[in-house]
Amino acid sequence: MGKGRLEAFSDGVLAIIITIMVLEMKVPGHGHNQLSDLKEMWPVFTSYIISFIYVGIYWNNHHHMFHAVRSINGSVLWANLYLLFWLSVIPFVSAWMGENSFHTVWPIVTYGFVLLMNSIAYTILVVVLIKHEGKSSPLAAAFGNDLKGKISILLYVLGIGCAWVNTYLSFAFYVLVALIWLIPDKRIERKLAAEQEHLT
Amino acid sequence: MGKGRLEAFSDGVLAIIITIMVLEMKVPGHGHNQLSDLKEMWPVFTSYIISFIYVGIYWNNHHHMFHAVRSINGSVLWANLYLLFWLSVIPFVSAWMGENSFHTVWPIVTYGFVLLMNSIAYTILVVVLIKHEGKSSPLAAAFGNDLKGKISILLYVLGIGCAWVNTYLSFAFYVLVALIWLIPDKRIERKLAAEQEHLT
Amino acid sequence: MGKGRLEAFSDGVLAIIITIMVLEMKVPGHGHNQLSDLKEMWPVFTSYIISFIYVGIYWNNHHHMFHAVRSINGSVLWANLYLLFWLSVIPFVSAWMGENSFHTVWPIVTYGFVLLMNSIAYTILVVVLIKHEGKSSPLAAAFGNDLKGKISILLYVLGIGCAWVNTYLSFAFYVLVALIWLIPDKRIERKLAAEQEHLT
Amino acid sequence: MGKGRLEAFSDGVLAIIITIMVLEMKVPGHGHNQLSDLKEMWPVFTSYIISFIYVGIYWNNHHHMFHAVRSINGSVLWANLYLLFWLSVIPFVSAWMGENSFHTVWPIVTYGFVLLMNSIAYTILVVVLIKHEGKSSPLAAAFGNDLKGKISILLYVLGIGCAWVNTYLSFAFYVLVALIWLIPDKRIERKLAAEQEHLT
Repeated sequence: MGKGRLEAFSDGVLAIIITIMVLEMKVPGHGHNQLSDLKEMWPVFTSYIISFIYVGIYWNNHHHMFHAVRSINGSVLWANLYLLFWLSVIPFVSAWMGENSFHTVWPIVTYGFVLLMNSIAYTILVVVLIKHEGKSSPLAAAFGNDLKGKISILLYVLGIGCAWVNTYLSFAFYVLVALIWLIPDKRIERKLAAEQEHLT
Repeated sequence: MGKGRLEAFSDGVLAIIITIMVLEMKVPGHGHNQLSDLKEMWPVFTSYIISFIYVGIYWNNHHHMFHAVRSINGSVLWANLYLLFWLSVIPFVSAWMGENSFHTVWPIVTYGFVLLMNSIAYTILVVVLIKHEGKSSPLAAAFGNDLKGKISILLYVLGIGCAWVNTYLSFAFYVLVALIWLIPDKRIERKLAAEQEHLT
Repeated sequence: MGKGRLEAFSDGVLAIIITIMVLEMKVPGHGHNQLSDLKEMWPVFTSYIISFIYVGIYWNNHHHMFHAVRSINGSVLWANLYLLFWLSVIPFVSAWMGENSFHTVWPIVTYGFVLLMNSIAYTILVVVLIKHEGKSSPLAAAFGNDLKGKISILLYVLGIGCAWVNTYLSFAFYVLVALIWLIPDKRIERKLAAEQEHLT
Repeated sequence: MGKGRLEAFSDGVLAIIITIMVLEMKVPGHGHNQLSDLKEMWPVFTSYIISFIYVGIYWNNHHHMFHAVRSINGSVLWANLYLLFWLSVIPFVSAWMGENSFHTVWPIVTYGFVLLMNSIAYTILVVVLIKHEGKSSPLAAAFGNDLKGKISILLYVLGIGCAWVNTYLSFAFYVLVALIWLIPDKRIERKLAAEQEHLT
């Protein structure tokens, strides 16, 4: 089965998720036209920025990963939809966190939980893809022991746990994971390049 | 006429439908930052999950079906738009059902009715496609007597009827149909594979 | 310049327009769970259906027309964007008409005006495309004197004028134009087929 | 790395941005059905039109630029996402400006600031692309000293500064920049054509 439509559909869903978050930012109404009206919204903006970066990271890595994929099957379709489900929840939890200014426990915990679920869903997608492509595929070689993925999951759990101590510390953990992933997954590019060299 | 743009447009509409449903979930406002504020929303979340799965199923089966289609005509375009129309109503009825916690008759009945209309619209699309492709096409062979489709329609009707007895029972019927379809349509894949083998 | 990205972008915009209209339909809130709550919304639903059909017609004809187009230029990009602009206004005027139940003059007039502007924008796009493709192109031959387009514009103007007499009559005119266009533009298909026959 | 999915994702995001702005225009409710209810909304419509044109300009130039691009890398992906981020903020600031009728300082200043940031983000994308493609690439030759980009940035800064004198003058500056860019970037087309001639 070709991967073209799965990529197109995922691109569509990711493009919509990353864009509709802006609709969750309520525009200050008529008469609220001072700089202070914007300043008050800083948690909403911060929440938007971090969520935009997260969805951007997932798009980048999804893009890179499927570049190395040669074909798909029904299980891959559903593993991919499962990832898209958790990504689609980001605008909701992002808005809740923004509305409550980072200093209340549950919005921060819920946001971290959704990031964690996304991370797990991505790992499941990788496992399903490697099972389909075979253990000797470039994809399998590229992921190796997936250290980056494991560290991320650990950091999310730490971040969630910290919320009962200090919610800003939790947020710092989420930012840290984003920074780790901001660099697109060079592993796949490198392995694929090596593979191609080997073949020629 | 090529099927490329029809697939792209359908993917776009389905991607948007599956994603904008999250906008129907009202974020608990400022000050509503407790876990209990989320817990109260469980019918809204349940409604979102089942609708996400349904749209996902339609995308998967649409994807599989058009994989077996070789060309389209004007009737196919309109049959496809008719299906997209009923799919586009899902976010509305899903939100209405979620707002009313599954224990009132009409939101449950309306949700079931829209699922039923989607099912019928999909059947119409299949019939129009088979008429265009010919009775000896792989598509026609793959669908056969379309037992799964017929059972689904029966279950929807039963589900709708049950709403006056117990709305949760109705919901159980809708979940049951989703489970039947969660497995992508292997029939087409199998028949296409057999066809290709036969040709070579 | 290739037409691929223009088609993809237009498909995207049209897919979004046709889908976000559902967001303009306000879900009856908690406690409003009777069939009568839905029945009250019939103007909103009717408005949604006619607008869905209109955007569907534009997509179908856009699809057919660009099928016959071989290349584009900067003027085509802007003429296309001008059409997309007027299409993007449909959800707004559709919601306004729906909210006011078809019996007040200005919402009906505004809806007709936007349909008229869409019709003119489509005509401009056709003229710009024919200028680019040449008068002897299959596209130019297919459109001929564009009788259907001229009749539509006349009917829109009549419909708008009728609003001061009877708003339901105006609406009937808008439905009539939709019916005329529901049949995809066979002219282009036929001419293209003849062209290809001639070449071989 | 292929540029196909980056183009598709950007097209998706731009299509959504240009379309969801219509959702920020609040439909006059039931009972508000007079022409005067629409007339009152003129700042909202004006804001929508200028923002639609701006997003259209960015799509056109993005389209033209990537036409000349042969391959991409990780830095290009992130520079492109950075541009998409600032474009995604346009619906928010556009709605704020529209709500406040162009005669208050901060909404006008914020709108200009976001346009300025978009302009800078586009310049960064160009620089990253030229670094990747090489100084002797058609892209580098086409952009030259990027006079148009520099003039735009200057005009935005002037427009922002004018807001404390006269907000309508600021708006006039923003319209002026739009007019400068309404003509798609002929430079690239011309250079590419020359390049191709040279090769043959």
